Amino acid sequence: MTELIAEQARGAASPGTEIVAVTPRFGPASVESVLESHLAAVGAIDCALREGAGHDAVVLAGFGELGREALQEMLTVPVIDITDAAAYVACLLGRTFAVVTTVDRAVPAIEDRLTLNGLRSRCVGVRAVDMDVLDLEVDQEATVGAVTAAAAKAVREDRAEVVCLGCAGMAGIAEQVSRAIGAPVVDGVTAAVRLAESLHGLELRTSKVRTYAPSPPKDIRGWPL
Amino acid sequence: MTELIAEQARGAASPGTEIVAVTPRFGPASVESVLESHLAAVGAIDCALREGAGHDAVVLAGFGELGREALQEMLTVPVIDITDAAAYVACLLGRTFAVVTTVDRAVPAIEDRLTLNGLRSRCVGVRAVDMDVLDLEVDQEATVGAVTAAAAKAVREDRAEVVCLGCAGMAGIAEQVSRAIGAPVVDGVTAAVRLAESLHGLELRTSKVRTYAPSPPKDIRGWPL
Amino acid sequence: MTELIAEQARGAASPGTEIVAVTPRFGPASVESVLESHLAAVGAIDCALREGAGHDAVVLAGFGELGREALQEMLTVPVIDITDAAAYVACLLGRTFAVVTTVDRAVPAIEDRLTLNGLRSRCVGVRAVDMDVLDLEVDQEATVGAVTAAAAKAVREDRAEVVCLGCAGMAGIAEQVSRAIGAPVVDGVTAAVRLAESLHGLELRTSKVRTYAPSPPKDIRGWPL
Amino acid sequence: MTELIAEQARGAASPGTEIVAVTPRFGPASVESVLESHLAAVGAIDCALREGAGHDAVVLAGFGELGREALQEMLTVPVIDITDAAAYVACLLGRTFAVVTTVDRAVPAIEDRLTLNGLRSRCVGVRAVDMDVLDLEVDQEATVGAVTAAAAKAVREDRAEVVCLGCAGMAGIAEQVSRAIGAPVVDGVTAAVRLAESLHGLELRTSKVRTYAPSPPKDIRGWPL
Amino acid sequence: MTELIAEQARGAASPGTEIVAVTPRFGPASVESVLESHLAAVGAIDCALREGAGHDAVVLAGFGELGREALQEMLTVPVIDITDAAAYVACLLGRTFAVVTTVDRAVPAIEDRLTLNGLRSRCVGVRAVDMDVLDLEVDQEATVGAVTAAAAKAVREDRAEVVCLGCAGMAGIAEQVSRAIGAPVVDGVTAAVRLAESLHGLELRTSKVRTYAPSPPKDIRGWPL
Amino acid sequence: MTELIAEQARGAASPGTEIVAVTPRFGPASVESVLESHLAAVGAIDCALREGAGHDAVVLAGFGELGREALQEMLTVPVIDITDAAAYVACLLGRTFAVVTTVDRAVPAIEDRLTLNGLRSRCVGVRAVDMDVLDLEVDQEATVGAVTAAAAKAVREDRAEVVCLGCAGMAGIAEQVSRAIGAPVVDGVTAAVRLAESLHGLELRTSKVRTYAPSPPKDIRGWPL
Repeated sequence: MTELIAEQARGAASPGTEIVAVTPRFGPASVESVLESHLAAVGAIDCALREGAGHDAVVLAGFGELGREALQEMLTVPVIDITDAAAYVACLLGRTFAVVTTVDRAVPAIEDRLTLNGLRSRCVGVRAVDMDVLDLEVDQEATVGAVTAAAAKAVREDRAEVVCLGCAGMAGIAEQVSRAIGAPVVDGVTAAVRLAESLHGLELRTSKVRTYAPSPPKDIRGWPL
Repeated sequence: MTELIAEQARGAASPGTEIVAVTPRFGPASVESVLESHLAAVGAIDCALREGAGHDAVVLAGFGELGREALQEMLTVPVIDITDAAAYVACLLGRTFAVVTTVDRAVPAIEDRLTLNGLRSRCVGVRAVDMDVLDLEVDQEATVGAVTAAAAKAVREDRAEVVCLGCAGMAGIAEQVSRAIGAPVVDGVTAAVRLAESLHGLELRTSKVRTYAPSPPKDIRGWPL
Repeated sequence: MTELIAEQARGAASPGTEIVAVTPRFGPASVESVLESHLAAVGAIDCALREGAGHDAVVLAGFGELGREALQEMLTVPVIDITDAAAYVACLLGRTFAVVTTVDRAVPAIEDRLTLNGLRSRCVGVRAVDMDVLDLEVDQEATVGAVTAAAAKAVREDRAEVVCLGCAGMAGIAEQVSRAIGAPVVDGVTAAVRLAESLHGLELRTSKVRTYAPSPPKDIRGWPL
Repeated sequence: MTELIAEQARGAASPGTEIVAVTPRFGPASVESVLESHLAAVGAIDCALREGAGHDAVVLAGFGELGREALQEMLTVPVIDITDAAAYVACLLGRTFAVVTTVDRAVPAIEDRLTLNGLRSRCVGVRAVDMDVLDLEVDQEATVGAVTAAAAKAVREDRAEVVCLGCAGMAGIAEQVSRAIGAPVVDGVTAAVRLAESLHGLELRTSKVRTYAPSPPKDIRGWPL
Repeated sequence: MTELIAEQARGAASPGTEIVAVTPRFGPASVESVLESHLAAVGAIDCALREGAGHDAVVLAGFGELGREALQEMLTVPVIDITDAAAYVACLLGRTFAVVTTVDRAVPAIEDRLTLNGLRSRCVGVRAVDMDVLDLEVDQEATVGAVTAAAAKAVREDRAEVVCLGCAGMAGIAEQVSRAIGAPVVDGVTAAVRLAESLHGLELRTSKVRTYAPSPPKDIRGWPL
Repeated sequence: MTELIAEQARGAASPGTEIVAVTPRFGPASVESVLESHLAAVGAIDCALREGAGHDAVVLAGFGELGREALQEMLTVPVIDITDAAAYVACLLGRTFAVVTTVDRAVPAIEDRLTLNGLRSRCVGVRAVDMDVLDLEVDQEATVGAVTAAAAKAVREDRAEVVCLGCAGMAGIAEQVSRAIGAPVVDGVTAAVRLAESLHGLELRTSKVRTYAPSPPKDIRGWPL
């Protein structure tokens, strides 16, 4: 899955951008529960602690997952979460957007992320295709079919004008789904790569004024891992 | 700190309620950053995994911290976060409330929790006294003075009618502050204990319909701790 | 109806709590209109004036009805409205809740109460079973059937995770409906009794800072009744 | 006070409009508490019951007070509350408005009315002059001075573009205050009279579809008064 | 179309009110796109520049269209947009309202106007009948049929209590539709005429405090037209 | 001014991106009123009509001004307004942002744009430096001083974590202001250029599903210019 996402990211990157894909050494292979989201966030934090300093920007490839704020606090380079990336890009392309994600139980977390980033009013719905994250890779055709059906429903019934793919594991299908539904489809990973490049190019970094100010070091039991 | 909170909880419990205080074996001694909130949440999840089943309800004593949703997903007994407990109780006592917390960098997380639980419109402000969590215990008189000053300002300038103590470490001072400012002061730990007893008494448990439905077991790297 | 509600309250009360049920000597036997809600509020105010002082807390058993603020202004002991009680308890059990009430014309008042107490964003819908309040008692089986059908729809179509019974007259059916729909069902009367006990146990009283500050006495035509 | 308001209304009415001022035979001479607002609403309901049918429209002259929905339910002719009237007219004249009312304890009720009628986002603040309703008449010059000071502050500090007089007892001073602050000042009574004439002229009546549908008659203890 | 609207306005005006209907000399005959809304606004601005000064109030007869703020800035007399007029009047008649407009692509602009004027929370939906503006005149019976069908759906499915006609070209059908659906139907043009008369009668003018303060003259390329 | 903005854009563009700066042949040299915003929008629409087709993306360099939706409707290539661009980029860098603009009368339009694009909840305030757009160029040092003072206030008093420059004429000063206030400062023009490149790189175009669907051609009086 990491390799698939890395390829996706490389395909979207500008010439000169090097993508380093990192698989956390702690946490689940995919996230489908709140518990797993917490463990994955700690896995990402662990990666950031060990490797964050050497990069110009960090993309966090878990749609609707926890962790972005922690990385923004720890690092000074831009940290782009694919949920935010997809949502902001979608808002540049249409008046409303919908998200198509894997399983129904992932929906609340995505809604919460949109509530907190301010764009819930632009999102007309989050629909699930009822496929586990790891199943997405198994049968690409079935994945495209299911995502297309949900995306078309979002356009027709929820009045979405743009559709975001709500899982990093839906890599490589955006164009196909877009052609099928006649509306732009945003892949969070590719959107995040381009936004990260943009921030880097603009020489902008995470604000350290308050929320993401560095915290004083502290002895923490069991940490670092 | 755990002992202080436990005493506070015992003082508030009804006859017949037994309080078992648990200190996580993973994570920071106090939470003052997003990173620490993530690690503390995993510490709490680890506790829940090992001990959650044997209790009638769980109180999560980190004000404005992450983790409640994960525990609600893992357990069937009620899980009460002290942020929610304080806010709901405050809303039963006045039209508006304010929160007085430790450090300024804790404010955004508290605001986010209130946004997500729906009560942000009732909260007229979150004020910080600029004391670290662990400093609260050192000089109780100074703590009472600082909290009283901030609480009085919240009443006078922000039009708060009730004040919530925004840190579990502010145990034992609610009554003193309340007398000084002439308004009810809610301690999240004691509020949570009583709400937990109420839910247990009403034989109500966490809904397993969707957001907190149990997730299928999965092999997770490095987990359990 | 008062006796039914009193029994319901007694069944939920902790040992040592004495429930005194009062039927107003002014106003309608049940509330199904705005006019009736106003008259019932004055009936409750009249009760509070005559008897309020002698109790440790007051529960106002009219779902979606007016009057709570007046009683909070008049009394210093906690006043718990069953609409608020049900909503706060529901929010402790799930991410969203729905209300099932009697008649369609009661829906707007319930929505208004939720808007004012801040929890409208957590409520996914208010559904009516189209039975008058006083009909609920006539055929308990029919009542359970109608409420169960509406509650199940709320879970399935509105994505409610918890259901609140939106009428004090729906006493004694929560457990049955809950088993049928597989989700927690909150009865406002029992919830309010437990919350009232909690506030009393926590020695917390209504804030007198501003909204509910006592008003100076005044000569009022026709009052007291 | 009734006579003062009646004159104010007559001064604003179009030729051909007859104003019939009614003082309720039940309730307080002025409203400065939630309790009094409830009693005044029943006083107004009693008036409506006895006299409502004979008029083309009803103006309810209690700023921020309860009762409008009950009258809309009981009558078919338009019922205009002066809070709504002032707010809608203010929104036609500027982007934002403020309310200047009598006492601080009247503020929450006004805010609630604006929340429920949808215009809270247009209102930048409700300020009190700390004068009782009945004091307004005593010294008109003092009243104008206090209201002007508060209105000027609302314009300067809260960025109000229009000011609404938040009490029917502030009759006859709008023009003077407006000249002093250089911004439009809306008197709710005169606004309501003109809006009532407009609805009558447009042959529009209260919708009976749902919220204000007539309720079936019922035997009610102590009612009619 | 201008003549139709003028007649509609004259029918609604009080005795003594003279209606001067002006057709812009720039811009489209009807507005069905954002581009056309911008051109029509400039057409209206051009009219206001040439003729605005001579009138007591201005009604802007484009439902959901741009321009009101510009005219309020340029003129001191009241400027009433029919979108606002219809919405405010609808809010005086029922708790919720819906809008029935011409084509689906007009819906977003109407929603935006309601968001900005604060009444989006009162509006339960905007429905389109899929007829172009200029087609409305062609077959009045077909228009009434289509509008009635959409309005009835809004009442039944969206819970609208009042319906606003969302196009100035729907003149003369409000009463017929109202009888058919059993709910008040508000025509924006007639509502605006009456509101304009009201403001004029109340001697109220647009606030010049901030948003609509006159702007200093400037040399502008191609302007005046 | 156009040349200044063009240089700013070129400085931010990636290698290979060609910037074509266009000065409208219709409309004001700068926008400081609603009227001017309308005329400038038509100037931009006229440009788009004549030249839009030949470019890969369009940046609309009027902060808080009208027009973006019209261009999105007319063109298929991405259209980026600098208000949106600055706001989205700011949201990637901090939890809250403020805008520093030229004159107070520009503030309401900026607030409206943020309300409509969904990010009003992230914006803690819009502050004006009280300098006309064309004055910004006259004395760069004075401009930097005034903007820095307002930006510092936004950080200190409004709790902004990021500051957006609210006028295209504030080109070239972002870095200086940022160093002075210790927080990221976003220039809308450079942000928009990078976002436009990103969308082009991602092969994403404006959704034509509904709001921005092409409108059928129509004969329009006075148009094209």
